[in-house]
Amino acid sequence: MTQWLKRQAAVRDRRGLVRRPLPRAADDQFIDLASNDYLGLTADPRVTEAAAAAALQWGAGATSSRLVAGTTRLHLDLEQELAKLAGMETALVFSSGYLANIGVITALGGPGTLMVADEHCHASMIDGFRLSRSRTESFTHNSLEEAGRLLAGRPEPRALIAVESLYSVLGDEAPLAGLLALAEEHDAVLLIDEAHTLGVTGTGNFQGRGSVAGTSLAGHPNVIVTATLSKALGSQGGAVLGSALLREHLVNRARSFIFDTGLAPASAAAALAAVRIIRDEPWRAGSVRSNAAALAAGLAPALAARGAAVEQTAGAVQSIAMPSAESALAAARAARTAGVRIGCFRPPSVPDGISRLRLTARATLTPKEIEDSCAVLRGILEELP
Amino acid sequence: MTQWLKRQAAVRDRRGLVRRPLPRAADDQFIDLASNDYLGLTADPRVTEAAAAAALQWGAGATSSRLVAGTTRLHLDLEQELAKLAGMETALVFSSGYLANIGVITALGGPGTLMVADEHCHASMIDGFRLSRSRTESFTHNSLEEAGRLLAGRPEPRALIAVESLYSVLGDEAPLAGLLALAEEHDAVLLIDEAHTLGVTGTGNFQGRGSVAGTSLAGHPNVIVTATLSKALGSQGGAVLGSALLREHLVNRARSFIFDTGLAPASAAAALAAVRIIRDEPWRAGSVRSNAAALAAGLAPALAARGAAVEQTAGAVQSIAMPSAESALAAARAARTAGVRIGCFRPPSVPDGISRLRLTARATLTPKEIEDSCAVLRGILEELP
Repeated sequence: MTQWLKRQAAVRDRRGLVRRPLPRAADDQFIDLASNDYLGLTADPRVTEAAAAAALQWGAGATSSRLVAGTTRLHLDLEQELAKLAGMETALVFSSGYLANIGVITALGGPGTLMVADEHCHASMIDGFRLSRSRTESFTHNSLEEAGRLLAGRPEPRALIAVESLYSVLGDEAPLAGLLALAEEHDAVLLIDEAHTLGVTGTGNFQGRGSVAGTSLAGHPNVIVTATLSKALGSQGGAVLGSALLREHLVNRARSFIFDTGLAPASAAAALAAVRIIRDEPWRAGSVRSNAAALAAGLAPALAARGAAVEQTAGAVQSIAMPSAESALAAARAARTAGVRIGCFRPPSVPDGISRLRLTARATLTPKEIEDSCAVLRGILEELP
Repeated sequence: MTQWLKRQAAVRDRRGLVRRPLPRAADDQFIDLASNDYLGLTADPRVTEAAAAAALQWGAGATSSRLVAGTTRLHLDLEQELAKLAGMETALVFSSGYLANIGVITALGGPGTLMVADEHCHASMIDGFRLSRSRTESFTHNSLEEAGRLLAGRPEPRALIAVESLYSVLGDEAPLAGLLALAEEHDAVLLIDEAHTLGVTGTGNFQGRGSVAGTSLAGHPNVIVTATLSKALGSQGGAVLGSALLREHLVNRARSFIFDTGLAPASAAAALAAVRIIRDEPWRAGSVRSNAAALAAGLAPALAARGAAVEQTAGAVQSIAMPSAESALAAARAARTAGVRIGCFRPPSVPDGISRLRLTARATLTPKEIEDSCAVLRGILEELP
């Protein structure tokens, strides 16, 4: 094994694909355009104080599986308020979004269920399909027509369509209304990962409540939502939202729920505080989107000069395709040196194999931070070969 | 799908296998013989205060993948001190033990690696095998001979033997020295899940450091350890421990590391505080084991009357086989009514299909708590049909 590990390391090195988890400081002075803390809630005193109080009151861990002694009132309150926020009947909290996706997909999978997945689905969904023992077919990104063809005339009695409401690397949205129509037509369930929309999208009275609440998808018997507690909600963990019948099924059948320690009370409390803030302060979602628009506008000239553009998206994510993994890495490093932290996504983290920079807007970015970071990034983009 | 969910629910109901996540209270007055808080650290003020301080200082969440902005000094300090405690070169922290097992197994798997697994391996390891695309063979529980036969003459260039140092439901140990000899003989790596031994087992100067530290397994190039931060360490999360080369491989290849939000700072800080306590207070591990022995002794008469016994194990877990899922559930409920929380394991959570009660000793149980709970459990066992 050691020789094989050495050969793998050498290949990564040669291809410029070595990654390292570098620490950030507690008093980090970077302008953050890399994290998924879309609403600026992870450092919000109401959220951090809820986490701290829960650790002191309930202990640092859940102590066991949710089914043994790992469920507290905090977990149940979080599930109730999260479901209400997102427009669904119930929620079940997992210790990570990754495990929530694996859990729901495997619990609904098996030879009797066809999985029909958008080709840009997240790694955790793909792992769910592999674990499910279901036949799995993927369709061209956002192609309703191809998804419909895969569903039509299937031999399996059940089917699940898997999509993300907004894709994390490119930042584009799924055609949810059309997908729901497909699900109804073909008697399938539609699984929507709201990882990058809960807290960010939604209109009118539903601002910040995600892409399902307030639409015909909300509470629909064919719709299941997965949510993460670690992005807009600023905490850790994930959840599956759907009918009470689904929740009971997951409690009894989702291996990644049953055989995992429950979410730490501090993380449950932080997510609960964040849910309440999202409910009470819908302006935050608006700020994310206007800040995202300001970033896109600020970079437009430099990108136009290169024959490229930042496409304005519905969420916080702005994606800039780069000529190579090396140039993406060099640009991200140059930005870092200049005080701006941006995301650098290279294979295998990009759905289409194209290395890119990924900028995320946050509700709490100041106009000066946006202006400064645009200046830095314009300079870097203009110097690219 | 709804009709299928209803049918599944009806089957569970009929078989007495419905499970519900019931909440415990913050001021819970039960005697806890159910959780995995073996050392009583989850509520230790040094651990909870470290968690609270970290949430306030670093925020409630890691904000992104460990590779983007989700690594803090806390994560790296935890990795360093955890590796040292367990006698391994390096550690890499995941957001759950489940994801640590999936991560290491898939990153080392593929068609070139044969997986040889003890039949009692945890669900997270089994999911890892399924995801790995490796040929996977299981051997009769603890049978070195069968494991050796599976490894001999394999076509795959690489092999991984997967075991737990101590199995979570039955509480028995793996023959680690013999397994290491097998691994060396067959040029395989030995993956040892120390979920239930880190903090609990170990002798002499290595008391509490688990089943690897201080033995010939520690730091051995053929040995990889997975640890959980959510049992003896009282927090949440998991880790993979091994060579620096392995760690670098996982950082770059383990999907459940790359595509998951990093562990919440509060949980990393709590685990770090726990590692230091385990290092400085080896008496805690001794107390777990003497309390486990006292529980076993206290139940012996009632079990002998039924022709059964609690076998004394090396760790905290005491397992009592029951005649049926219903009787296990009834006994657990009766204990709960009498103020004692015990584990009730039914299919699919039992490796051999036998429903059982599971009692876990903790370092902080008082003599009176042990006496009282034994009296309650003796009464329940004597009344069983």
